[in-house]
Amino acid sequence: MEDAFSALEDFSADRAVVPAENSVDGPIDRNLDLLLRHEDVNIVGELVLPVNHCLLSLPGVKISGVRRVVSHPQALSHCKRRLEELNVEIDEVDSAADAAKFVAENGIGDTTAVIGSKVAAGEFGLQVLEHNFQDPTVNFNRYLQLGLGSGSAIRPGETRKTTVAFTLDSGVSDLFRAMWIFEVRGVRVTRVEHRPNRANPIRTVEKETGKAVKLDYVFVLDLEGCGSDPKVKAALTGLAEIAGFVRVLGSYTSKCESIRS
Amino acid sequence: MEDAFSALEDFSADRAVVPAENSVDGPIDRNLDLLLRHEDVNIVGELVLPVNHCLLSLPGVKISGVRRVVSHPQALSHCKRRLEELNVEIDEVDSAADAAKFVAENGIGDTTAVIGSKVAAGEFGLQVLEHNFQDPTVNFNRYLQLGLGSGSAIRPGETRKTTVAFTLDSGVSDLFRAMWIFEVRGVRVTRVEHRPNRANPIRTVEKETGKAVKLDYVFVLDLEGCGSDPKVKAALTGLAEIAGFVRVLGSYTSKCESIRS
Repeated sequence: MEDAFSALEDFSADRAVVPAENSVDGPIDRNLDLLLRHEDVNIVGELVLPVNHCLLSLPGVKISGVRRVVSHPQALSHCKRRLEELNVEIDEVDSAADAAKFVAENGIGDTTAVIGSKVAAGEFGLQVLEHNFQDPTVNFNRYLQLGLGSGSAIRPGETRKTTVAFTLDSGVSDLFRAMWIFEVRGVRVTRVEHRPNRANPIRTVEKETGKAVKLDYVFVLDLEGCGSDPKVKAALTGLAEIAGFVRVLGSYTSKCESIRS
Repeated sequence: MEDAFSALEDFSADRAVVPAENSVDGPIDRNLDLLLRHEDVNIVGELVLPVNHCLLSLPGVKISGVRRVVSHPQALSHCKRRLEELNVEIDEVDSAADAAKFVAENGIGDTTAVIGSKVAAGEFGLQVLEHNFQDPTVNFNRYLQLGLGSGSAIRPGETRKTTVAFTLDSGVSDLFRAMWIFEVRGVRVTRVEHRPNRANPIRTVEKETGKAVKLDYVFVLDLEGCGSDPKVKAALTGLAEIAGFVRVLGSYTSKCESIRS
């Protein structure tokens, strides 16, 4: 995934889209860490899409003939119930798309199926044996669109969110103060994350005893409102007074696709 | 790791110790998820230990003769700098201990070394080629001790922390209110985590549009103080008024080992 960030930085791509969170499995911390490390890359948009795992096979294979299902561990875990019903052998691979390609190109698929996307089926000439193969929990992915600039201009009536990263001298004990700075100005905080601060992962190591007193974090908050909104601006100024560093990761629009599409 | 929880539940173990967080890599979400799923298992203690990765080999091997280093991906990533200096081939395996055992038993170790613990060296008859092989960042692991009961009785002068999990009807937007309930009573919140609420991962799906409005979370806070402390008790009662469910995961003592040991 680091390639996506490099492609933006060396101007070989204008936009990158990286997964940020799955509604069942939680946040994808590695991509947030990469965003924190790549200082010129900003969030320019957010997209929430329903997960539609498809069971794919070579054309002509019947679902009753499938003996083995291959996919990425996350996809396999989302489809536990149907996999148990089918009573098949399960194999984990690093990439569902690579698995689809392998089955398609090597013609080994007379009893092997892959959990993948409709797009992968089209690309590699596979058939969709079953749509929405996942367990009946409603399942969404949240993606971040990344770019070097600040994203598209705001349109009338459009609501934006802002993501801000910062460190606090007193760590989590000061998080309440940071949230208060937003709440008191009527800026709603809609997400609170923290990641290890790799520059300084232990807050304090006691000189006398050599004991670690606290782990250190970078906090990442999502706020309702644009960075140019006076309320948000005032709150960010207030935050700077108690924070070690503050970086606005982006002000952007969130788009949500219908489950029924 | 699920085995550790099962061992407690079928009484084949009194205590289990699971890693909860690394100061460089962040929390180990899977173990927090398991703790949330296993309702009878509580936190009975916390242990913060410095990481001491050792480079291990068969006796007689010299560091200059090592051509290949095998370990768990996390251990390898903690030792990047020294591995680059040694200019060796690197192989990832699922378990550093299994790798040490394999090298020891198969005698393939004339040019292969393993990153592992001093304990593994002793157990499998390997020599320690280098202590503290990791990069010079201060690096700690935080472990949780788990059990079915409520842990040891509190000793005079001992400070305790309490971990509480809860859901909020308005999701993250209500987190500030939840934290306020503790702060206003003088109970310091020292950690804030959230994990997807697997029972109900999407907060609201709009009936009209089928759009997901919010992802749902279980919040997990660490508090200073024991669950029997009147301030903490009062705050938990207040929390129950705004929370969907509240579960105290444990009140326990945190122990911290010196880096210099």
